[in-house]
Amino acid sequence: MVDDINRLVARTPAAFARQGIDVRVHHRVVAVDPAARRVAVLPPGASEPVSEPYDELVLATGALPVVPPLEGRDAEGIFPVKTLPEAEAIRTLLEARRPRRVVVVGGGYIGVEMAENLAHRGLEVTVVEMAPTLMPRLDPDMGAKVTEAVAELGVRVLVEQPVRRFVVRDGAVRGVETDQGVVEADLVFLGLGVRPNVALAREAGIPLGVSDAVVVDEHMRTAVAGVWAAGDVAQSFHLVSRRPTYVPLGTVANKQGRIAGLNLAGIPATFPGVVGTSITRAGRWEIATTGLSTSEARDLGYDVVASTITAETKLGYFPDVGPITVKLLADRASGRILGGQIIGTQGAGKRIDTIATALYAGLRADDMVHLDLAYAPPFSDVWDPVLIAARGLVR
Amino acid sequence: MVDDINRLVARTPAAFARQGIDVRVHHRVVAVDPAARRVAVLPPGASEPVSEPYDELVLATGALPVVPPLEGRDAEGIFPVKTLPEAEAIRTLLEARRPRRVVVVGGGYIGVEMAENLAHRGLEVTVVEMAPTLMPRLDPDMGAKVTEAVAELGVRVLVEQPVRRFVVRDGAVRGVETDQGVVEADLVFLGLGVRPNVALAREAGIPLGVSDAVVVDEHMRTAVAGVWAAGDVAQSFHLVSRRPTYVPLGTVANKQGRIAGLNLAGIPATFPGVVGTSITRAGRWEIATTGLSTSEARDLGYDVVASTITAETKLGYFPDVGPITVKLLADRASGRILGGQIIGTQGAGKRIDTIATALYAGLRADDMVHLDLAYAPPFSDVWDPVLIAARGLVR
Repeated sequence: MVDDINRLVARTPAAFARQGIDVRVHHRVVAVDPAARRVAVLPPGASEPVSEPYDELVLATGALPVVPPLEGRDAEGIFPVKTLPEAEAIRTLLEARRPRRVVVVGGGYIGVEMAENLAHRGLEVTVVEMAPTLMPRLDPDMGAKVTEAVAELGVRVLVEQPVRRFVVRDGAVRGVETDQGVVEADLVFLGLGVRPNVALAREAGIPLGVSDAVVVDEHMRTAVAGVWAAGDVAQSFHLVSRRPTYVPLGTVANKQGRIAGLNLAGIPATFPGVVGTSITRAGRWEIATTGLSTSEARDLGYDVVASTITAETKLGYFPDVGPITVKLLADRASGRILGGQIIGTQGAGKRIDTIATALYAGLRADDMVHLDLAYAPPFSDVWDPVLIAARGLVR
Repeated sequence: MVDDINRLVARTPAAFARQGIDVRVHHRVVAVDPAARRVAVLPPGASEPVSEPYDELVLATGALPVVPPLEGRDAEGIFPVKTLPEAEAIRTLLEARRPRRVVVVGGGYIGVEMAENLAHRGLEVTVVEMAPTLMPRLDPDMGAKVTEAVAELGVRVLVEQPVRRFVVRDGAVRGVETDQGVVEADLVFLGLGVRPNVALAREAGIPLGVSDAVVVDEHMRTAVAGVWAAGDVAQSFHLVSRRPTYVPLGTVANKQGRIAGLNLAGIPATFPGVVGTSITRAGRWEIATTGLSTSEARDLGYDVVASTITAETKLGYFPDVGPITVKLLADRASGRILGGQIIGTQGAGKRIDTIATALYAGLRADDMVHLDLAYAPPFSDVWDPVLIAARGLVR
């Protein structure tokens, strides 16, 4: 689909330079001194860092893939996937080594996307997940549908199987050992999520919060004067739980970067927060979620009512019609919508945006049932599936 | 696409009967007497009506197609399109008569859908519209894009040409005369919208409101005791303009019917109102609108700010990516979103639901820019086009 991996680079250093921005690639910041407002930078090839002053500093160090502290984790052939050069290295390896059996550890959306692409290349792919379903951020009933969708792609799925260790021979990975035995592997990919890249921040004494992400206010200021943070390194505020959260997604990173930039440019701006929306595709299935899951909501003390319906993406006489399952969660006491989950064929996934907007606005179930959503036969039934799900909450 | 026209019937009389509902088809109510709580009904074949009592009456008489009072309007070959039997009669006629040239009068969504289907059958189709663009409920700049989209289908489009009269020969229509000459036609279809079917209501003294639709309260009660109204015969409350409106669409009719039914069944329920969402397709283009247009908003006294952007429906390396234009309108004083219009290829149209939900909730432009909408490359750019449009309002 993409011939040149550079097409995936959103903005090149040259593009920044044209805007008058001094971009220094391959320079590693090794320390931050907020009191002196200086950073220590190691230029390429240098053995000693140089000290650079700043007026305002933005930490945008992103996230790092989670690598579990298991025996054998440093063996050749185990790849956490995060950066484009890593993806490029993997592609080269797949072409050179011609592996047959691949294990993906972790069945979140990165794991599922990797499994699909590897299966599409003709590899024997097994996904190993410790939770009872793939995409364990979803409720178990919806996660079970994802598990089926991924199995439909010819991927072997093992759930409730935490990885105990990596089997290594001659320095190279040969398998993944779980409670229930060894899954043989020529290559192993880790799709275990990410953690904020906060080594610099921690050493500089900048306070960390939920998931060890950098604590920021709604302007994206850290608790330390002159230091800002934005993107996968920073925490967010969850508009449904009303608590700090960590959502390392491009949508949130972009919004936070914009807010930090506006404030630094002297234009006051605030970031109210997130509702935790995400979407992915597995074969013909679109999978999306927003807000809290049932277990997250219960942990916060909500008495959760749920409505789950299966309908069709559009009127049944269209050739490309397919099923869509919508699950909506609400708080019994107030009626407020707490979250939504969708799995279905083409046209299903982006319907999550309606629920995400309702969450942002704090709508109740008896509002949602009245939403004036668009209907015409090629797009929806006269009651959009989101409305049918909402009706189930108000009856 | 649909072999049997009966597949388009949502619920048959037999289905109602199975629910214990006494359905009498081909019975015409000729008068309502609210004081006596009786209706006069003409059964099939009868010459005199019979009087039937009621406890509560629901007027669900729907709408009638608008037929302009022009010379020649009763000629053979002129069809207002509204009911399934009419559609069936037209199909039979097209097959029997094999007309070559067809004129569609009116370029709203019904006119556009008819023009597309007739062109698809190989007919020479001309749409004649008196406004400067097709879909004149849209702003002129967005309507111009619809005009182009329809022309792309091989349909001839004549705008700013009000019809003066129908040209008739031997009792049959032969053309449509506008200010600029005669457009020859073997058949003429009228797509001039509908008006509420209120003859019974008017004669019974039930108050009519905007567009002569029956005035109802939020429970769907008319101003006359024991008489309710729902669907295309009834008016609605517009949640953006905060005024009564007339929106004869299936979505609204279904919601109103549900509310009337709940109340009649003793379950208190209210219908807060509509925001005026609609969607249609013309060839590869999806066209949707919600809320107020610029001219509607100005007529209500708003100082309107607009943001119009063109982006892509998903990331550019997907084969089915295409353009999407989003126009958002807001009130300069309060920042509140007033309306939105979208035209684009697959995946564009239902994005109107995000704007419709924002309108229902009364969100401002500086809320919309923060909405946590779903992103993954097969679905959207990291900034959804709706958010890009919103950014244009807050700068």
